[in-house]
Amino acid sequence: MELSPANRRMGVEVEDLEDGSVRLSLATDGSFENEVGSVHGGFAAFLLDGAMGRAAGRSLAPGEVTATLQLSVQYLAPAQGRIRATGRIVRRGRTVAFLEAVCERDDGVEVARAHGVWTIRPGR
Amino acid sequence: MELSPANRRMGVEVEDLEDGSVRLSLATDGSFENEVGSVHGGFAAFLLDGAMGRAAGRSLAPGEVTATLQLSVQYLAPAQGRIRATGRIVRRGRTVAFLEAVCERDDGVEVARAHGVWTIRPGR
Amino acid sequence: MELSPANRRMGVEVEDLEDGSVRLSLATDGSFENEVGSVHGGFAAFLLDGAMGRAAGRSLAPGEVTATLQLSVQYLAPAQGRIRATGRIVRRGRTVAFLEAVCERDDGVEVARAHGVWTIRPGR
Amino acid sequence: MELSPANRRMGVEVEDLEDGSVRLSLATDGSFENEVGSVHGGFAAFLLDGAMGRAAGRSLAPGEVTATLQLSVQYLAPAQGRIRATGRIVRRGRTVAFLEAVCERDDGVEVARAHGVWTIRPGR
Repeated sequence: MELSPANRRMGVEVEDLEDGSVRLSLATDGSFENEVGSVHGGFAAFLLDGAMGRAAGRSLAPGEVTATLQLSVQYLAPAQGRIRATGRIVRRGRTVAFLEAVCERDDGVEVARAHGVWTIRPGR
Repeated sequence: MELSPANRRMGVEVEDLEDGSVRLSLATDGSFENEVGSVHGGFAAFLLDGAMGRAAGRSLAPGEVTATLQLSVQYLAPAQGRIRATGRIVRRGRTVAFLEAVCERDDGVEVARAHGVWTIRPGR
Repeated sequence: MELSPANRRMGVEVEDLEDGSVRLSLATDGSFENEVGSVHGGFAAFLLDGAMGRAAGRSLAPGEVTATLQLSVQYLAPAQGRIRATGRIVRRGRTVAFLEAVCERDDGVEVARAHGVWTIRPGR
Repeated sequence: MELSPANRRMGVEVEDLEDGSVRLSLATDGSFENEVGSVHGGFAAFLLDGAMGRAAGRSLAPGEVTATLQLSVQYLAPAQGRIRATGRIVRRGRTVAFLEAVCERDDGVEVARAHGVWTIRPGR
């Protein structure tokens, strides 16, 4: 799969699952840590946003475009090592899509949960 | 100012303002774009999270630590070029801090707004 | 001003301010308390939602309708006595409006803050 | 079950489920409508907040108290008739609980989804 420039820059791997959901993963190490020695929460937010946004994108008809309107993230546990976020559509309306996503560590611990709203528009 | 590993990796610049707020900035270009040719929304989320988290961190007493509990972001307009997020404390309780942040472009357009909740704990 | 059925039922008073914002107020007493003897947080959420929704509604052109997509609320301090929420538009696009609101007590303490997203659609 | 003053005032019925989750229900009619003839979204927010808050409360040890820190609601479809919200704990830490809830109509359509964060504190 060809990666977007942003995912290539971040080292994010992308997997489109058969049920329409999207899984993004990122291998973190010490270079991802914040001032207090934990993996910066912004990386989980980046993955969750990206997984939901791409899942919204997979639902588009030809000529439609989508953009994030809002995103809410709960931080459940510290990220460490490889983390992966899986995003899926909860409800797809004609002009709006509602999504949710979960971010987990390799040991199965949930790092964060998110939900968000995407607008769907005819492209130009 | 010494940057955290995460901010160094991301190319984020950090400015601690005199009123206790924190401003983070990031110069985006084509390598920050998503599949549809816009700057990936996750970068604004990263800046907003980081600006609020560092503002929370500046309020800590010796021995205290802080961690993000929740974050909500509104996406108002597309990011482009240099973007900067300013985070400030809305209310600081003994065990919880409430923060808000705004992310703007160089032309003054607001890209995103956020609020979030941080827990404050005695360190170990 | 004529109240909506919901606001009449809840005892909510409505004030349309000159700058386009909306202020809703509610006098709480012991009958608004939850299981632990505090005013139920749902009343602040109700006021914040209503103040933002009505402010969105005041921005509509003839024939347009609006509906809430998403709402995020921070609870800063316990509600008590009379509380009032003021909602205003942060950005009004063609198909989406972003709003924010603050809920205060009579003594000026902020009880809660919210932001939300409303969809704007041509009516039928 | 004895109702809290707030739930009695609102006409909310409460059901504590065996798995620790909580279901609140409310029968709406025309007196619950907003200015545009739909059930006011604040009622779903009230139910979601209450269902999650009570589920958090059911997890308390003797002497502990809980309070809402933050709440995010997605509005998926119009409420009508009887609506019921079911709240459950996603993760319970020592000082924080993360919850989620779904609000449905009698015909099974999901009206709204929410997640939120509750603080857990030793009581006085």
